[in-house]
Amino acid sequence: VDVLIIGAGPAGYMAATWLARTGVNARIIDKRSSRVFAGQADGLQCRTLEVMQSFGFCDRALKEGNHMLEICFWEPDAKGNIYRTESIPDTIPGISRFQQIVVHQGRIEQWFSDAIKKWSHGKMEVDRPVLPLALELDESVKSDDFDAHPVQVTVRHMADEAAMAEQYGSKVANGLFRAFEGDSNKDKFEGDEGKEIIHAKYVIGCDGAHSWTRRQIGIEMEGESTDYIWGVLDAVPITDFPDIRNRCAIHSANNGSVMIIPREQGLVRLYIQMKEAPREAGSARVDRAKITPDLILDSARKIFHPYKLDMVDMKWYTAYQIGQRVAGKFQKNERVFIAGDACHTHSPKAGQGMNTSLMDTYNLCWKIAHVCKGLAKASILSTYESERTKVAKDLIAFDYKLSRLFCGKPGKPGDKDGVSLEEFHRYFEKGNEFASGTTVDYQRSLLQARPSLDFKDGDEPPCYYAKVAKNVAIGRRFDSARVINQADARSWYINDRMLSDGRWRVLYFAGDVKANTALYDFMKKFGEYLASNDTFVKRYTPATAQIDSVLQLYLIHASARRSLEWDEFPEAFRHRDHVGRMDYWSIYADDMSYHEGHGRAYEKYGVDPNVGALIVVRPDNYVSMVTELSGDGIEDVTNFFNGLMAPQKESWTSNGGFKDVAKREEDTYGKHDFGNPVLAV
Amino acid sequence: VDVLIIGAGPAGYMAATWLARTGVNARIIDKRSSRVFAGQADGLQCRTLEVMQSFGFCDRALKEGNHMLEICFWEPDAKGNIYRTESIPDTIPGISRFQQIVVHQGRIEQWFSDAIKKWSHGKMEVDRPVLPLALELDESVKSDDFDAHPVQVTVRHMADEAAMAEQYGSKVANGLFRAFEGDSNKDKFEGDEGKEIIHAKYVIGCDGAHSWTRRQIGIEMEGESTDYIWGVLDAVPITDFPDIRNRCAIHSANNGSVMIIPREQGLVRLYIQMKEAPREAGSARVDRAKITPDLILDSARKIFHPYKLDMVDMKWYTAYQIGQRVAGKFQKNERVFIAGDACHTHSPKAGQGMNTSLMDTYNLCWKIAHVCKGLAKASILSTYESERTKVAKDLIAFDYKLSRLFCGKPGKPGDKDGVSLEEFHRYFEKGNEFASGTTVDYQRSLLQARPSLDFKDGDEPPCYYAKVAKNVAIGRRFDSARVINQADARSWYINDRMLSDGRWRVLYFAGDVKANTALYDFMKKFGEYLASNDTFVKRYTPATAQIDSVLQLYLIHASARRSLEWDEFPEAFRHRDHVGRMDYWSIYADDMSYHEGHGRAYEKYGVDPNVGALIVVRPDNYVSMVTELSGDGIEDVTNFFNGLMAPQKESWTSNGGFKDVAKREEDTYGKHDFGNPVLAV
Repeated sequence: VDVLIIGAGPAGYMAATWLARTGVNARIIDKRSSRVFAGQADGLQCRTLEVMQSFGFCDRALKEGNHMLEICFWEPDAKGNIYRTESIPDTIPGISRFQQIVVHQGRIEQWFSDAIKKWSHGKMEVDRPVLPLALELDESVKSDDFDAHPVQVTVRHMADEAAMAEQYGSKVANGLFRAFEGDSNKDKFEGDEGKEIIHAKYVIGCDGAHSWTRRQIGIEMEGESTDYIWGVLDAVPITDFPDIRNRCAIHSANNGSVMIIPREQGLVRLYIQMKEAPREAGSARVDRAKITPDLILDSARKIFHPYKLDMVDMKWYTAYQIGQRVAGKFQKNERVFIAGDACHTHSPKAGQGMNTSLMDTYNLCWKIAHVCKGLAKASILSTYESERTKVAKDLIAFDYKLSRLFCGKPGKPGDKDGVSLEEFHRYFEKGNEFASGTTVDYQRSLLQARPSLDFKDGDEPPCYYAKVAKNVAIGRRFDSARVINQADARSWYINDRMLSDGRWRVLYFAGDVKANTALYDFMKKFGEYLASNDTFVKRYTPATAQIDSVLQLYLIHASARRSLEWDEFPEAFRHRDHVGRMDYWSIYADDMSYHEGHGRAYEKYGVDPNVGALIVVRPDNYVSMVTELSGDGIEDVTNFFNGLMAPQKESWTSNGGFKDVAKREEDTYGKHDFGNPVLAV
Repeated sequence: VDVLIIGAGPAGYMAATWLARTGVNARIIDKRSSRVFAGQADGLQCRTLEVMQSFGFCDRALKEGNHMLEICFWEPDAKGNIYRTESIPDTIPGISRFQQIVVHQGRIEQWFSDAIKKWSHGKMEVDRPVLPLALELDESVKSDDFDAHPVQVTVRHMADEAAMAEQYGSKVANGLFRAFEGDSNKDKFEGDEGKEIIHAKYVIGCDGAHSWTRRQIGIEMEGESTDYIWGVLDAVPITDFPDIRNRCAIHSANNGSVMIIPREQGLVRLYIQMKEAPREAGSARVDRAKITPDLILDSARKIFHPYKLDMVDMKWYTAYQIGQRVAGKFQKNERVFIAGDACHTHSPKAGQGMNTSLMDTYNLCWKIAHVCKGLAKASILSTYESERTKVAKDLIAFDYKLSRLFCGKPGKPGDKDGVSLEEFHRYFEKGNEFASGTTVDYQRSLLQARPSLDFKDGDEPPCYYAKVAKNVAIGRRFDSARVINQADARSWYINDRMLSDGRWRVLYFAGDVKANTALYDFMKKFGEYLASNDTFVKRYTPATAQIDSVLQLYLIHASARRSLEWDEFPEAFRHRDHVGRMDYWSIYADDMSYHEGHGRAYEKYGVDPNVGALIVVRPDNYVSMVTELSGDGIEDVTNFFNGLMAPQKESWTSNGGFKDVAKREEDTYGKHDFGNPVLAV
């Protein structure tokens, strides 16, 4: 195979989805015999929902999940009874078009599983239970040897029973004993029966906090544990506590803290600090065997006082000790990568574990796809570690501080022992911006055309903006605004035309071309350039593909939609395919719509309608470059792509165009999408 | 069976979906061996999308369909070339939260088919190919005999080959020869092989314009044909016509008219007036055998002049002669009903055929479900014919006028021969309101508490408004506004809490209870009334069901959400079920939301926050009653339900409550929905 994915948790599912979507020959294995059906991670942050939307299944999350809108803070009064001190929005208004939702991991994995099946046309599915036994990496193979398969992984196909996690043995599913039998009883699995050797160009280890892959490539976790012990319950509460359907952070006077996460189907998850958790003899480690749902519930009741609390329909419970750890490296030789919990572990209460794991492989796998398909240079793979290590470290720092504030006993400002609840509220609120996932900021590299900046780990580096698009931070995700399709007046979030299908986008903000003659002239000249033989599009697009299958162009003008006629726009933005069918979905107006108001895209992005801009967006929707409408700007874009893309042997440039070589649509990739990219899974 | 549905087109699918959703023992048969895969009806109007939303699958329509936003009018200039004279929104802004979309009937039937499977838990699916042979109705059985099965239908199960419509025999699917072989070659199907006799309480004939069921009960169609002949093509156009992705009405000088309907997947449907269609010898009837796609395309090209037109990816074509006909009656003995094309046929260009057919059985089947389950009196069934006959007649009148204006040769105002294009534009625009399906207005009956009005057939009767909700027309569909859930701050379209599941809704607009003491006191009193034993809810709810399973109550107040605490609201609106789980999803505030703005529901409905209102909404979302907040208002509601509902032998009233009889959740119906009614299909 080109790519072997080890482990089918969130990171593994995202990797498989991306590789299926981009048509890479990949395989995913997991040692467990079935998916997760209860508990585990559950929060989907804004950025994760945006990415799900780009794969076409965000609607399932919005439909099935609980929408968590409000956070309430509760504190002890003088008598030790808790009372509400403040309620604020959970997702910062305006930060994204989606707000966070909560739904259990099993459903999320189902959506990914369906997406993998859809995009791979039924060819890819999780191969389970399959246990990895050995990994060998041939370090002599060069990174630009696209044909070699330098990683060899020996695996064993097992019978289902041997791979059943103990979680399913007891009446209530719990997360205490997810250690897998196969790990400790290797002797059961000797001999050659069911053995297979898999040769791969790349391997991605998505195999969790105790990652087998990580151990094979000799990477250590760095960080520490804390003394705080938390219990978790998923159940339907019977209570007179009025905010049980809101996210709540409750600090009691002496009995610890609770976080409430309201969930789908009437369920509520409680994270409960356990002041009196049973410990292992002579150790600070919690004795997990002695933790029961009743014990956790008892701890909760003390914190909820004077409100009553019972639970029915218990679905899942667990207990854990907070620790913050991050892997020293995220890859070896840019052939074997690790992602997700294999790279970073921390407390679950900020809802970051699954989200960050999903974003790890979302960052990695379009790059692997580009290299496997010969579209880009292998050097782009190095950006995975540089980009994601920083995210992991920021996360650990955030979680460290939040955990300390949440677990500490409430005190007045200046108290030595206590934590300031005011400080906690403010940090929590600020943390919501971080937690939304929308502020991830990738630094200067061959993928981001921006200056290098000086900042320390954990510090927030300043965003970098180019002056022609004052609100578009280079390195951050491209936020969505509504624009109107020129041909049919439909209002679109522009990001719904920029789905995760492996393509780069060049957004041409043409400005108010009707009013501004210079901009109109530039539009004509840009059109002539794009119609010529040697352009940044044609150089990197295989002649066997549609012209928009690697780099997709969009024109967004700032004139009234009906003030311009269709044939005034350059043909590059309304091109015909090999049978003459026209593209009606690449030209947009920043204008009033009939039913959805005015998107005010130019204002949102900080683009002057009398100046315009060119914006290059990565296949994972991060902004690579912002530059001006001029010959220099076009050269900037050209140089940017020259720096990372691989010239094609049979490109449009070398070959004179698609029509010469493409006989049948089935032979091409990047089929005409007829403006309808969001199809039902 | 309780209900037999004959014919699986739009009307039949809607009937089956409703009956599956409400848990009625029903069966659906069709004489063809497979679903439609191309062509046919394609437009989904606002009201249809609202109903699909209420069954949980409108998102599929919005995702897959083409959103048709704009209508352009094209006319001939002095030289005979066409030019654009006007462009206007296709759906009137503000008329609904959905705008019309276009997608082929096969996909629509797929969504219904999936919904039937989901709601019937896999038990119901279309039984095909099954040919009905004979229908006998025992007219002696009384309408209130709920146990009798007075209709006997003899059917024959056929082999697939015998039932294949000729449509699939040629290279391009076409609608010219949909006549079914079994109809004309009855002798092929003699003998007893595959025969079955089905006994039903009710039969619904959804078997199309040539309805077999209609013939069995001796109902005639009334109306006439015209001389106009139209061809239809579904294909991807290759053209320089700039508005090809908009709905267009094109009048040429001498070559007739075209209507353009842009569709999904780059397709466009053209309705083309054929001035030179081949006729049968000595007759005005078109000779269908001589009509080819090329002939239709040639007619189109003349009208498009000076623009070029070619078509690729031809999916479907047909030709038809316009006629307007309506059935004299829609039922016999209120045991055998007909619906859809069996009741009304007309031209397809206003996109009304499928939509009206869907709405026919959407009107009928909740009534049948109520009667089959013993919840309502059989007399409610008589409202089907009275309500839908008026809709059919209005449609025929609308279509007659529109067709004449569209087919006529353009002329100047006052011309004897020509039609005024200005009149055409204005009628078309006005027609869009009618065509949206949102203005259907059911008159006074036991289902609508409103005065009788005098008006002639075809005339528009005045809407009727009660003064406490100035904008809520009694008899029209209840339009949706956004409100905020009191418990969790989520913004909902209130109609997404009023899904099509068979329940009545009583909306209690409590007013600004925080500021207005009288309204606060009324809230307490209404709460006491609802907590008592004899209420309009408890009288008609079986004691084996959840208290909200027949009549669902919502409280919508006009105070700031956080100005009221949860325990101030009456327990009837936050009731606990038999295991103590609370309902957190029945109390709403008309207040600013965090992310979706302010719904301004009171303003939209014309309810004064210092007065309030009680609104009763039918299971199919039509407004039955609007009355005041007072003892008299509660009596109005009580009397209304007394007039149509059937008292329950084991009601909460007679039995003292649900907890005494319900042991296990599985034994009940109307399960706790935990505020999440919109689940994925």
